[in-house]
Amino acid sequence: MVDIATRVWNHKWKIDPIVRSLIDTDFYKLLMCQSIFRNNRDTQVTFSLINRTKSIRLADLVDEGELREQLDNIRSLSLSRGESTWMRGNTFYGKRAMFTPEFMDWFENLRLPPYHLEKRDGQYELTFEGSWPEVMLWEIPALATLMELRGRAVLGDMGRFELQVLYARAMTKAWEKVERLRDVPDLRIADFGTRRRHSFLWQDWCVQAMSEGLGDAFTGTSNCLIAKSRDMEAIGTNAHELPMVYAALAQNDAALARSPYDVLADWQAEHDGNLRVILPDTFGTPGFLANAPDWLAGWTGIRIDSGDPATGAEAAIDWWRARGEDPREKLIIFSDGLTVDKILDLHRQFAGRVRVSFGWGTMLTNDFIGLTEGDALAPFSLVCKAIAADGRPTVKLSDNPNKAMGPAEEIARYKRVFGVGAQERVEVVV
Amino acid sequence: MVDIATRVWNHKWKIDPIVRSLIDTDFYKLLMCQSIFRNNRDTQVTFSLINRTKSIRLADLVDEGELREQLDNIRSLSLSRGESTWMRGNTFYGKRAMFTPEFMDWFENLRLPPYHLEKRDGQYELTFEGSWPEVMLWEIPALATLMELRGRAVLGDMGRFELQVLYARAMTKAWEKVERLRDVPDLRIADFGTRRRHSFLWQDWCVQAMSEGLGDAFTGTSNCLIAKSRDMEAIGTNAHELPMVYAALAQNDAALARSPYDVLADWQAEHDGNLRVILPDTFGTPGFLANAPDWLAGWTGIRIDSGDPATGAEAAIDWWRARGEDPREKLIIFSDGLTVDKILDLHRQFAGRVRVSFGWGTMLTNDFIGLTEGDALAPFSLVCKAIAADGRPTVKLSDNPNKAMGPAEEIARYKRVFGVGAQERVEVVV
Repeated sequence: MVDIATRVWNHKWKIDPIVRSLIDTDFYKLLMCQSIFRNNRDTQVTFSLINRTKSIRLADLVDEGELREQLDNIRSLSLSRGESTWMRGNTFYGKRAMFTPEFMDWFENLRLPPYHLEKRDGQYELTFEGSWPEVMLWEIPALATLMELRGRAVLGDMGRFELQVLYARAMTKAWEKVERLRDVPDLRIADFGTRRRHSFLWQDWCVQAMSEGLGDAFTGTSNCLIAKSRDMEAIGTNAHELPMVYAALAQNDAALARSPYDVLADWQAEHDGNLRVILPDTFGTPGFLANAPDWLAGWTGIRIDSGDPATGAEAAIDWWRARGEDPREKLIIFSDGLTVDKILDLHRQFAGRVRVSFGWGTMLTNDFIGLTEGDALAPFSLVCKAIAADGRPTVKLSDNPNKAMGPAEEIARYKRVFGVGAQERVEVVV
Repeated sequence: MVDIATRVWNHKWKIDPIVRSLIDTDFYKLLMCQSIFRNNRDTQVTFSLINRTKSIRLADLVDEGELREQLDNIRSLSLSRGESTWMRGNTFYGKRAMFTPEFMDWFENLRLPPYHLEKRDGQYELTFEGSWPEVMLWEIPALATLMELRGRAVLGDMGRFELQVLYARAMTKAWEKVERLRDVPDLRIADFGTRRRHSFLWQDWCVQAMSEGLGDAFTGTSNCLIAKSRDMEAIGTNAHELPMVYAALAQNDAALARSPYDVLADWQAEHDGNLRVILPDTFGTPGFLANAPDWLAGWTGIRIDSGDPATGAEAAIDWWRARGEDPREKLIIFSDGLTVDKILDLHRQFAGRVRVSFGWGTMLTNDFIGLTEGDALAPFSLVCKAIAADGRPTVKLSDNPNKAMGPAEEIARYKRVFGVGAQERVEVVV
């Protein structure tokens, strides 16, 4: 029976909103937001969308009017009562009242700040300027919006059954991954795929399929809205934007060299246990570990997000050993460009030697590769990064020069300060 | 939004009915029913369900109580007003008022006669006895019911996402067939898959997918309910039961030898054009064609339903030539055990030499092969046939000894009367 009211309601929407909630974002953004709100509330930052896959000419594919409608819709969102209750009342990483009343009062009144949008060379220049805790919340919805609008542009030309078969194929593909992963003993894997997902509904489907197929091996999702609605764990710790902005704010080379550890000192003041996870690659992992203060070796784990993951994990293990820690009690989270093959390989290599966990992103929530003509739905490498803080440019070196960003002279300076030598280039797919 | 009334309504059903309409059957059953109603209304027949695939122990898989509930439900069905209007008012094969008012008056008041059900050796013995026009209507719903109950027994153990992925895989598989067929020039193909379908909803999906994917190359469906609801052509002509019963009723060998042509003489009195399609294999194609009266060569086409299809088609072409007919104006309908490969082969071989058409059955509407463990959903060879008429056994020889049926001494007599020599055995899959 057709639900007439629902049908009429659906046709009343001026647009089909891509992002419908402020918590349709990664959990670590909220954790970092609170940390920034506490420590760096007034820092002025610029975030910018960067399409690393230049061959995808987004401005040719995606209508500017539609993009503006979606971004304007995101600016109209505010935290709902139920969302606020969940954030205030839920237990995250075993901790009650993770978000302070002061932060929640602020967040409940938040609307996202304005955006600046221009077309250049077939790409969109989309930037956000303002106070750090506000601007940083644009990252995930901006990325998800552009990914989904690009998808919609492709889907718009397809017939009804063609569409159904497309999703049937994508489901089959996703389930084959689940089937390959379900027999791995002691697997721990979470969804990290919000930012470059095919769409919200598809991410939601993938998360539920992983949950049914993998049971307890599926530890949760980084997406707060899905974690809330599906009663799952919200997963995530911290990201490059913290050391990037702290570093940009450093007044001299000594402060710059110290900045990645200042970030984690602030983090340690707030978080325990599985939230104490080091992200060491912002300015090169080897230097970061070599110069790290001893208290950092006491942290729970390390997230490997660039460079060769096995090399990074071996470096972490060696470092823990050198600092007198037992690697078997430590956690390594792999989160960079994971495929099932890579997950199986890394699990085989490191399970038992350390506690291994996976944060699976784009190839979980946006693997439509090979499903359309000309692979028009294949994911691509879109990021949204802090490019300036209080008027100073940010820099990221990473363990892969293809992921480096910032002005050339600043990159040179950072390399010198952080003692970064030759690095292996790894192709960035997503 | 949940439609509460629909949800409550769905839970009020005592069973989930497999067959919900008397016209959820093949169009040719209705055509034949009218013909029988006109010519042989009082003939008493017995129809019996026969599972040729003995390895599938239906009585172990399917609960007898559930089977009885479904069969009882079918006995409660009667023609709805809309269905009657469609049959009375629609144009079939270009003809208005295909079904006479006299037949429709009878059909509107019809309920299917009782059934007899017993278990023996892990199989169900399901038989129907009574007047021919009533009993013959059991064939399709009985087959569809057993096929679907066997499927439900397998599906009952599967999880929600496992189920969704199963159908996703089946959709993908079906669409790959559509994609292989869509580029064939001048293809003409119809759905003949009601009797051994996976389920009604799945047949309906396959029919719509074929329609979207193939456009005009998809000529319609044999299923009247789907033809009605999807506004498609209802497709079908006649089947083996007519010559089998006519032959059983023959009082001597001369009458027996004449009976297959008597059937078609009665048919010719009722039908023109594309409904004048010969089914020559009931008692062996070579003898049938050799002894056929000349007026039969004037008919529109021949349906090849057993034996090697290319051999059968060549025999038909030779026969038309020998009788002074131009094969290029004749229609050959292939309807036996078709796969995409076989369709493509036969089309390549015969397109241009004759008008080629395909009636695609089980491998369109029940191809779950390879999609479950142990292939628990693979189709099998279930038929429901007239086994007796007015107390005399029926016989079918077909062009494949594996499809022959009847008492041994009667088979021997028929072979003698119809001059059937050595025949090639072809494995019967579905």
